Amino acid sequence: MARRYDQRTTIFSPEGRVYQVEYAMTAIRHAGATVGILAKDGIVLAAEKKTTAKLLDGSSTISEKMFKIDEHVVCAVAGITSDANILINYARLSSQRYYYTYQEPIPVEQLVSQICDTKQGYTQYGGLRPFGVSFLYAGWDKHFGFQLYQSDPSGNFAGWKATSIGGENSQNAQSVLRSKYKPDINYKEALELALKVLTKTMDRSNVNSDKLEFSYFTKKGDQIVYHILSPKELDDFIKDADLENENEDS
Amino acid sequence: MARRYDQRTTIFSPEGRVYQVEYAMTAIRHAGATVGILAKDGIVLAAEKKTTAKLLDGSSTISEKMFKIDEHVVCAVAGITSDANILINYARLSSQRYYYTYQEPIPVEQLVSQICDTKQGYTQYGGLRPFGVSFLYAGWDKHFGFQLYQSDPSGNFAGWKATSIGGENSQNAQSVLRSKYKPDINYKEALELALKVLTKTMDRSNVNSDKLEFSYFTKKGDQIVYHILSPKELDDFIKDADLENENEDS
Amino acid sequence: MARRYDQRTTIFSPEGRVYQVEYAMTAIRHAGATVGILAKDGIVLAAEKKTTAKLLDGSSTISEKMFKIDEHVVCAVAGITSDANILINYARLSSQRYYYTYQEPIPVEQLVSQICDTKQGYTQYGGLRPFGVSFLYAGWDKHFGFQLYQSDPSGNFAGWKATSIGGENSQNAQSVLRSKYKPDINYKEALELALKVLTKTMDRSNVNSDKLEFSYFTKKGDQIVYHILSPKELDDFIKDADLENENEDS
Amino acid sequence: MARRYDQRTTIFSPEGRVYQVEYAMTAIRHAGATVGILAKDGIVLAAEKKTTAKLLDGSSTISEKMFKIDEHVVCAVAGITSDANILINYARLSSQRYYYTYQEPIPVEQLVSQICDTKQGYTQYGGLRPFGVSFLYAGWDKHFGFQLYQSDPSGNFAGWKATSIGGENSQNAQSVLRSKYKPDINYKEALELALKVLTKTMDRSNVNSDKLEFSYFTKKGDQIVYHILSPKELDDFIKDADLENENEDS
Amino acid sequence: MARRYDQRTTIFSPEGRVYQVEYAMTAIRHAGATVGILAKDGIVLAAEKKTTAKLLDGSSTISEKMFKIDEHVVCAVAGITSDANILINYARLSSQRYYYTYQEPIPVEQLVSQICDTKQGYTQYGGLRPFGVSFLYAGWDKHFGFQLYQSDPSGNFAGWKATSIGGENSQNAQSVLRSKYKPDINYKEALELALKVLTKTMDRSNVNSDKLEFSYFTKKGDQIVYHILSPKELDDFIKDADLENENEDS
Amino acid sequence: MARRYDQRTTIFSPEGRVYQVEYAMTAIRHAGATVGILAKDGIVLAAEKKTTAKLLDGSSTISEKMFKIDEHVVCAVAGITSDANILINYARLSSQRYYYTYQEPIPVEQLVSQICDTKQGYTQYGGLRPFGVSFLYAGWDKHFGFQLYQSDPSGNFAGWKATSIGGENSQNAQSVLRSKYKPDINYKEALELALKVLTKTMDRSNVNSDKLEFSYFTKKGDQIVYHILSPKELDDFIKDADLENENEDS
Amino acid sequence: MARRYDQRTTIFSPEGRVYQVEYAMTAIRHAGATVGILAKDGIVLAAEKKTTAKLLDGSSTISEKMFKIDEHVVCAVAGITSDANILINYARLSSQRYYYTYQEPIPVEQLVSQICDTKQGYTQYGGLRPFGVSFLYAGWDKHFGFQLYQSDPSGNFAGWKATSIGGENSQNAQSVLRSKYKPDINYKEALELALKVLTKTMDRSNVNSDKLEFSYFTKKGDQIVYHILSPKELDDFIKDADLENENEDS
Repeated sequence: MARRYDQRTTIFSPEGRVYQVEYAMTAIRHAGATVGILAKDGIVLAAEKKTTAKLLDGSSTISEKMFKIDEHVVCAVAGITSDANILINYARLSSQRYYYTYQEPIPVEQLVSQICDTKQGYTQYGGLRPFGVSFLYAGWDKHFGFQLYQSDPSGNFAGWKATSIGGENSQNAQSVLRSKYKPDINYKEALELALKVLTKTMDRSNVNSDKLEFSYFTKKGDQIVYHILSPKELDDFIKDADLENENEDS
Repeated sequence: MARRYDQRTTIFSPEGRVYQVEYAMTAIRHAGATVGILAKDGIVLAAEKKTTAKLLDGSSTISEKMFKIDEHVVCAVAGITSDANILINYARLSSQRYYYTYQEPIPVEQLVSQICDTKQGYTQYGGLRPFGVSFLYAGWDKHFGFQLYQSDPSGNFAGWKATSIGGENSQNAQSVLRSKYKPDINYKEALELALKVLTKTMDRSNVNSDKLEFSYFTKKGDQIVYHILSPKELDDFIKDADLENENEDS
Repeated sequence: MARRYDQRTTIFSPEGRVYQVEYAMTAIRHAGATVGILAKDGIVLAAEKKTTAKLLDGSSTISEKMFKIDEHVVCAVAGITSDANILINYARLSSQRYYYTYQEPIPVEQLVSQICDTKQGYTQYGGLRPFGVSFLYAGWDKHFGFQLYQSDPSGNFAGWKATSIGGENSQNAQSVLRSKYKPDINYKEALELALKVLTKTMDRSNVNSDKLEFSYFTKKGDQIVYHILSPKELDDFIKDADLENENEDS
Repeated sequence: MARRYDQRTTIFSPEGRVYQVEYAMTAIRHAGATVGILAKDGIVLAAEKKTTAKLLDGSSTISEKMFKIDEHVVCAVAGITSDANILINYARLSSQRYYYTYQEPIPVEQLVSQICDTKQGYTQYGGLRPFGVSFLYAGWDKHFGFQLYQSDPSGNFAGWKATSIGGENSQNAQSVLRSKYKPDINYKEALELALKVLTKTMDRSNVNSDKLEFSYFTKKGDQIVYHILSPKELDDFIKDADLENENEDS
Repeated sequence: MARRYDQRTTIFSPEGRVYQVEYAMTAIRHAGATVGILAKDGIVLAAEKKTTAKLLDGSSTISEKMFKIDEHVVCAVAGITSDANILINYARLSSQRYYYTYQEPIPVEQLVSQICDTKQGYTQYGGLRPFGVSFLYAGWDKHFGFQLYQSDPSGNFAGWKATSIGGENSQNAQSVLRSKYKPDINYKEALELALKVLTKTMDRSNVNSDKLEFSYFTKKGDQIVYHILSPKELDDFIKDADLENENEDS
Repeated sequence: MARRYDQRTTIFSPEGRVYQVEYAMTAIRHAGATVGILAKDGIVLAAEKKTTAKLLDGSSTISEKMFKIDEHVVCAVAGITSDANILINYARLSSQRYYYTYQEPIPVEQLVSQICDTKQGYTQYGGLRPFGVSFLYAGWDKHFGFQLYQSDPSGNFAGWKATSIGGENSQNAQSVLRSKYKPDINYKEALELALKVLTKTMDRSNVNSDKLEFSYFTKKGDQIVYHILSPKELDDFIKDADLENENEDS
Repeated sequence: MARRYDQRTTIFSPEGRVYQVEYAMTAIRHAGATVGILAKDGIVLAAEKKTTAKLLDGSSTISEKMFKIDEHVVCAVAGITSDANILINYARLSSQRYYYTYQEPIPVEQLVSQICDTKQGYTQYGGLRPFGVSFLYAGWDKHFGFQLYQSDPSGNFAGWKATSIGGENSQNAQSVLRSKYKPDINYKEALELALKVLTKTMDRSNVNSDKLEFSYFTKKGDQIVYHILSPKELDDFIKDADLENENEDS
């Protein structure tokens, strides 16, 4: 009977639920998992790639999962990529507008808040569907240093120390993070933790740069640096890390 | 049969009810309880936090339940946070606009009334759903001193001496407030009363700063002061208060 | 079968009825009763309050049932308060606009007519629901002296000598008014008559200033005066009146 | 099966009918009957009042059934009064605009035609319901002298010598008019004929100024005069007329 | 099953039909028949009147069936009169606008074409119903002399030598026209032919000026003359014609 | 089950079809067949007329099937004529606008492309139905000489050497064209081929200028000439051609 | 049951799918296959033509499957051609606008991204259907040299080394590409590979320039050259290639 209330985005069901938002969240579950970890000295974003076609042209500028919004903010995506593109365009514009007005980078939380207000509108007005996409936002600003946020299709968001979005085994990922995360982790350890989380349920033969994407924010002196691991860097890193991993599991 | 009338926000059922508004109120019941108490010398807002992930990053500026609108007004939220954000943005803007025009803080009731008129519109026009959020507004102005208001998804509001929103045991909370509230309560006693109300139905092991959020308005000389208890302050306060509490119960 | 025609505000049923308007009237029946009596020397408005929470803060400026529109017009409300607020805002603005344009108070009937035209629109256009509120308007102008009007959700209105809106026992109230009303009644007798009407079906223990609200218009010399009885005044008045009342009943 | 086509104002049924318009006409049948008679020297409008509350305040300017549009045009209404108000406002504005532009009164037919075009629109566009009201328009202009028009919810209109709208016994009224109307009738005889038509099916005890409303247009020298019979005039007139009436019936 | 496609004006049924347009045509069949005949020296329009109330005021300017658009164009109507009024207003405005711009009368076909484009729009856009009216347009211009056009609710139109719209026996009328029409007919013979067509299925007792309306265009020297037969002229004409008629039938 | 997807123009069925467009195409099948043939030295357009009323006035400028858009472009229509009129108006305006801007005739393909983009919009947006009309466009421009295009309700179009639209035996017509068409055909042979195609399935007694319409484009020196065969020319042509035809068939 | 969610473009099904987008993709499967291959020194686009009418006029400028957007970008289409036209117009305009503003060709990815954002909107807003078309974009810019992109009705896009859209045997085509593609392929080898992919499932007798369309981008010195193989070139190429092909298969 609950199904009577799930065909319009703008209505509540008798239990007070907005079903279209919940269905949008299901869409995200089909996407590859994405993990974000806030470290003392940076932030790690790591994602599982679902598309397997070896003919994809990696040399273009399109990352499948990670998008730079500004020099100091990056986001990782789980869900419908074309929905995400709209919001990312909006975020980039917001960021530039802020810079143009105030001559300083937009604070990370303010940017996240603006995107989420847009998302919320698509859950309340008729004739629209919610954006079928969740984000992890990693950024740095002078007020709060490194920050990691997560938002979902409802427009809710929160700051996290470590979290994951997307993936069928999201629960699993969250519980690994809870048990292994330590507040004084550095970004290199965070990379390893992210690998552990993502590969827990993957077939070992798939654990390589074709199926994974890793990046991190850190600080080099006064400079904020964002780096995406090249396939070679990633494969090397996996080879080293994997060994440790097995040891630890045993 | 009544269900025929609950799929559009803009219609009355034969009994004269607007079901979407009632369902939105149900949404609020799933949220953690929030208590507001008006004291002689201030106002107390206290909330139960539902999210339990220890990985949430508390250092960011986002309070989960309490939002400053202006120097002299604060609100506590129960319901869908992304819905609340939209109304809070609107309230902040209204407040600044008033100040810009009249060079004095907006009277608390006028601010509450404006937000509620916006809420009402979402219950009368087609293609929209009501805002799934109730508010407690705490504020001070020169006309009426400290004031506590409560509003719900229909856009109704009223001034209260002590009240609670959200929470499965809302009835319970209201009855504790009715029996224990005294008009000459001071804000410190109000903090203790709020704790008693919130913890009545909580598992004792959960009664700590991870699960609770306390704040109060008071006056220091001519200055209005709003203070959110830090986790440490809160835990200390709970330890002391809890003892008293038990004594009283016995 | 008639139910096929009751889910859109903009259609007639085969019998020529607009069901949404009739359902909105049902909504008003759930509200507390409100009585208006036109006297030789003034007008009385009296209302039963439904909310019983003793923690409501009466010191704020919000009357639950009676709203001043201008110095010379007041209205009493039965129905959804947040709907009423929208119309009252509109009435206040209309009244000020008239004054600004013509430098004299708006005639009472003109004001009532404007509000009712607005109400009518919400019964004829799609995507809207009717306003779920009935009003009693009490006012004075130089053309017709004291006047009492009643309007309902359809936008119909009429001038009355004595009438009541809201309340489950509306019929009862009307019949008491019909049998006891005398054209040469003065406002003090009208207060007593109003009390009699409202308390007829109330539990005697509830007959006090917590549950009732009384106000009247009268003329002091050339001055129009509007007065809301304070809880003390009201309780005193009830004590005196009640006795008479009982005598009369016996 | 025909019922499939009666829930949208903008569609034809397979038989070529627009049901919403027909239902609106049903709404008018519930209203009290209104009779118009064109005489050599004037026009008579007479109506049965449905509301019986003796507490209605007759001293206000609101006639229940007859509305002056301009010095030279009056209309009588059967149906939903709040719908009528909207069209009467529109008619008054049209009339003044015409006068302002051309410095002479608007021809009666032109005014009627404008109102009816507005009515038509509400039967053809989606999201609206037809106006639930029929009118009799009585007026005088220099082109055609005294004129009587009738319009219905579809926006159709025509000039009549004598006609009636509203009332459960509309057929009856029409047939009395057909048999008794004479082209050389004067306005005084027309008043009597109107009384006969309206009272045919009324309970004799109700035939008084509480239940009836009579008015007429006539010419005093060059002056057009519109007069509504006062309750006293009406009761006197009924007393005299009634006798004749009985004689005639016997 | 075909009925699934008849409730929206904007959709095709699987057989490629737009049902709402076909239903609108049915509406026209209920109207009285109207005949147009193009003669060498003029055009005849003749109509059967459906309304029978002898109290209709014929002295007003409203013809029930024939409307002058401009000095050189007239139209006859079958269907919903209030729908027709809207299109006739539009046609009059178009005609005047053309004259104002080019200082010569609008060519007849251009006028017809404009009205039909408007009609077409109401069959293609949602939320509207087609105009429930067919027209015969009779006119003269310097390019093509006398012309007779017919249009229907779909917005289709064509030039005709003789045709009829409306009436339950439309087929019958068409077949009489086909068998009796001669290209070298003059307007007087055309009047008789029109009478024959209209009266074929009428009760002989109804064949008089109460039930029929005749008019014709002809040329007096260089002047285009449009004449509506007065009731007297019509009755005289019927008397003479009828005889011939009977002779011919025998 | 497929029928669930055929009531809205804007949706795909599970098989990826837009049913409303397919139904519109069915509407075209009911229309008379129209043939276009591109010859070395011109283009032939020939159509079967469905309306049979001998009373249609052929002297007016309205061709039933062929419409001149500009001096160098003509179109033939199959489907709903009033729909076609709208697009033809649009085409004429486009053509004139182009000429006004660039001082040379619009290239034929550009004109066709503009009309088709308009058609496409009516298949993708809600609240509209597709245009129920197919076109053959014949034209000449300096870039590509004589060109023949065909478009359908979906907005698809293509250039053709010989094609037909409308008609129940469209398949048949196409196959005759395929077997008989030769690239070096001249416009006179093309006229005969067109006749053969159209008359294949017609009753021989109907093959005359009442039922057929023939026109062609050709070049006289540098001049582009468009000629519609007069009824006499057509009947003469049929007489001659028919003989050959029979010979050929035997 | 899933079918409840497939009739509106703007809703998610409970499994998080947007069915209208998936149905649009089905529409594309009915189209002929199109193959794109990125070579070291150019890009090949090759398509199977579905329309078989030998009477199609190939001399017009309309390619059925390949459209030039600008000097440096071309796209190949699979799906509804009239939908594609709208997007191609938009792309051409975007490209020219960019050039006008920055005086250099628009980067290929930026162009693709703009088109895809437009596509996305048609999957999220009510009252629209998604564009039923997939594209291959081939282009060159100074930032990334030769690039090949693919987009689908959802608005997703990605860069590819070799891919195919449309065609019932899309899986098959993809797998041939995966097994035969080599990164150091040159454009001539790519032409042969494309032929192999397209003809794998075609009837050998259809493998000729009537059924196929081949084009390529390459660089002649500093010049970007786009060439569509003429029917003769194509048939010659097929003859040569086919032989090799057979040898290879054996």
